[in-house]
Amino acid sequence: MAARNAFYAQSGGVTAVINTSACGLIEAARARPDHIGKVYAGRNGIIGALTEDLIDTSRESDADIAALRHTPAGAFGSCRYKLKSLEENRAEYERLIEVFRAHDIGYFFYNGGGDSADTCLKVSRLSAQLGYPLQAIHVPKTVDNDLPVTDVCPGFGSVAKYVAVSLREASFDVASMAKTSTKVFVLEVMGRHAGWIAAAGGLAADDDCPIPLLILFPEVAFAPDRFLARVDALVREHGYCSVVVSEGVRDAGGSFLSDQGLRDAFGHAQLGGVAPVVANLIREGLKLKYHWAVADYLQRAARHIASATDVEQAYAVGRAAVEFALTGRNSVMPAIVRLADDPYRWKIGEAALEEVANREKKMPPEYISADGFGITPACRRYLQPLIQGEDYPPYARGLPSYVRLRNTPVEKKTGTTFALK
Amino acid sequence: MAARNAFYAQSGGVTAVINTSACGLIEAARARPDHIGKVYAGRNGIIGALTEDLIDTSRESDADIAALRHTPAGAFGSCRYKLKSLEENRAEYERLIEVFRAHDIGYFFYNGGGDSADTCLKVSRLSAQLGYPLQAIHVPKTVDNDLPVTDVCPGFGSVAKYVAVSLREASFDVASMAKTSTKVFVLEVMGRHAGWIAAAGGLAADDDCPIPLLILFPEVAFAPDRFLARVDALVREHGYCSVVVSEGVRDAGGSFLSDQGLRDAFGHAQLGGVAPVVANLIREGLKLKYHWAVADYLQRAARHIASATDVEQAYAVGRAAVEFALTGRNSVMPAIVRLADDPYRWKIGEAALEEVANREKKMPPEYISADGFGITPACRRYLQPLIQGEDYPPYARGLPSYVRLRNTPVEKKTGTTFALK
Repeated sequence: MAARNAFYAQSGGVTAVINTSACGLIEAARARPDHIGKVYAGRNGIIGALTEDLIDTSRESDADIAALRHTPAGAFGSCRYKLKSLEENRAEYERLIEVFRAHDIGYFFYNGGGDSADTCLKVSRLSAQLGYPLQAIHVPKTVDNDLPVTDVCPGFGSVAKYVAVSLREASFDVASMAKTSTKVFVLEVMGRHAGWIAAAGGLAADDDCPIPLLILFPEVAFAPDRFLARVDALVREHGYCSVVVSEGVRDAGGSFLSDQGLRDAFGHAQLGGVAPVVANLIREGLKLKYHWAVADYLQRAARHIASATDVEQAYAVGRAAVEFALTGRNSVMPAIVRLADDPYRWKIGEAALEEVANREKKMPPEYISADGFGITPACRRYLQPLIQGEDYPPYARGLPSYVRLRNTPVEKKTGTTFALK
Repeated sequence: MAARNAFYAQSGGVTAVINTSACGLIEAARARPDHIGKVYAGRNGIIGALTEDLIDTSRESDADIAALRHTPAGAFGSCRYKLKSLEENRAEYERLIEVFRAHDIGYFFYNGGGDSADTCLKVSRLSAQLGYPLQAIHVPKTVDNDLPVTDVCPGFGSVAKYVAVSLREASFDVASMAKTSTKVFVLEVMGRHAGWIAAAGGLAADDDCPIPLLILFPEVAFAPDRFLARVDALVREHGYCSVVVSEGVRDAGGSFLSDQGLRDAFGHAQLGGVAPVVANLIREGLKLKYHWAVADYLQRAARHIASATDVEQAYAVGRAAVEFALTGRNSVMPAIVRLADDPYRWKIGEAALEEVANREKKMPPEYISADGFGITPACRRYLQPLIQGEDYPPYARGLPSYVRLRNTPVEKKTGTTFALK
């Protein structure tokens, strides 16, 4: 069998370890030149395929590809561009096949979350319909941790570690200041639809390091009075408390707390930020001094404090994608299979994309404590292994040495252009 | 000479390494039982002395004291409590001497910023007036980096490293997303009066790692139109840009940008947060997608990414304080003296408190680039060594092992109480 080329693209919000998966994938492909020719990457994700803007990763040195392992964010660029359904815009899928055909691409590796798993499946089906031989393999990635089948999504463990470490540190800070100054610290974290990241804040406290803290989950309708009563009780008992709030918290009416209608002096709506809203409630309701932080991109880009477990898994799913390709698989995704909680043991399994696409893994209700403000022991058993181990990047002059690739374009061959919708 | 006891207190906002100074000080004191009896710490800073709420640090194990070296925040509690002038409230100073006398305290170590240096000096003067033998030694600490004489203030280097690392990481993130999504990332950092911390954001970009970024300093009046024009130009040229904004940025009229009069839906004033104000301007003025983060306590508590240089210096000033005490010094502060920029060499020097108290080190104007949005090579030469080296804390189960001390109270002896004003 003649070697065919591969196409790899990064999709959606990036993570601290999506490049680690790229590293595993490209290194594995380079080791099998008998089967895989060049790995072309989409510049800015799938848009790069649609516009035939491909990057020739064979132009990168082995050292630079190895450095992807410790470099956060998307080295080839990502995009938020959801392909429509086959019925709505079949032309997009046909264009992908046209570009793949022009560059003799036999392997389609798509590194993303639920939407990209769905795209991957559709591309696989259409290529079969069109008689174009293509193996479509999805590589899991999302800080939201909402892909089914897999025990965890690469990217989540590192965000979880960042949030747990940061909340522990800030809680030590507020505890120091509480006598005369700040008594409540509020940290806003990502997770618009599910409380996985907020739950990770719960790991900041444990038996060895008790911290009075409350978690506001998107799964639990926010009840201001009950919340303030809990803050008040914790501050009375411990002198301080910390609050981790998911950006997706909603009030009883279902509206995002962050869309509370803040206006600036000119009457412009002020977007985003649930932490200041919660902090303001504490000030108004309890007259307590507070500080608040919004971690935003810092949390998902924080490669400096990545979870070693997450890094290993991200690398492993990249490698496994190539191994799946070499053994003829199609429409599949490497998944993390948990074998044991403590000590954590896991292996790579195989998930059919039909089982992955368009299914969201919710936080199980039994992971949230009865009062709605904390995590249960079961949740802790699930989360704890995912933040284990440190995997520090190399440093130069006090800063992490993250690689920037050359990203050399591949000569266009289709002779046609394609207008993005 | 009989050994006398020492009093140590932490003052004001805590840092990632103020406990490192405590560690250096207590370890040095334990090594000289011939001169120093017990080290008593003030519970919650100087308030602990005024209320005779002392902590007996001799009850802590050597291992726990050693662990202070890698534990952020204030292990004995800090406070925001500024003693009034001698004229206004001489009783406060007399009370301190009363407590010191009752516990045979011959050494007063005060670990803080400019206000505490001033207090330290006054205590020293009053004890001389009252004929009470006391050596008062100030131990420098402040993330604001505004103490004079010393090359740098312990605590600043670690915040600087956190901000530079975080901004580099988030900039990689926004660069990945810029094609179809976020084009501007705004990070708010501390520094109400001086732009030292914001300046550190400039280190995120260097010759090896160019990043289009703008810094908003409190030293430069904010000009919205000029700022938006620069954001627009950078996004046009590079596809994205990052902005680091000091919490202390003011408009041309001298008002804090963060006090822009935000109101929530109920008409309550919304306090704090200049990042959302700047982000909103970008949205209104340029229609660009943005993300913003507010680091707040995360930046000064981030012991997990502390600068090794900062840790060494924080430890060294703690040790030096004891050495100064043993050689009979009074009304002094150990200072960091820079011997060379690159490779950075430094030593401990001695600063008279008269030279330290009530003098603020401003950022030199020549550290800000001519356009007001960046740092100069001179500023980079100053800052770069301060973030050098990593000093990771130990981890257990994926989280840093920070120590919590027993903080055993010392039996009260004065028989009197004191009401705090």
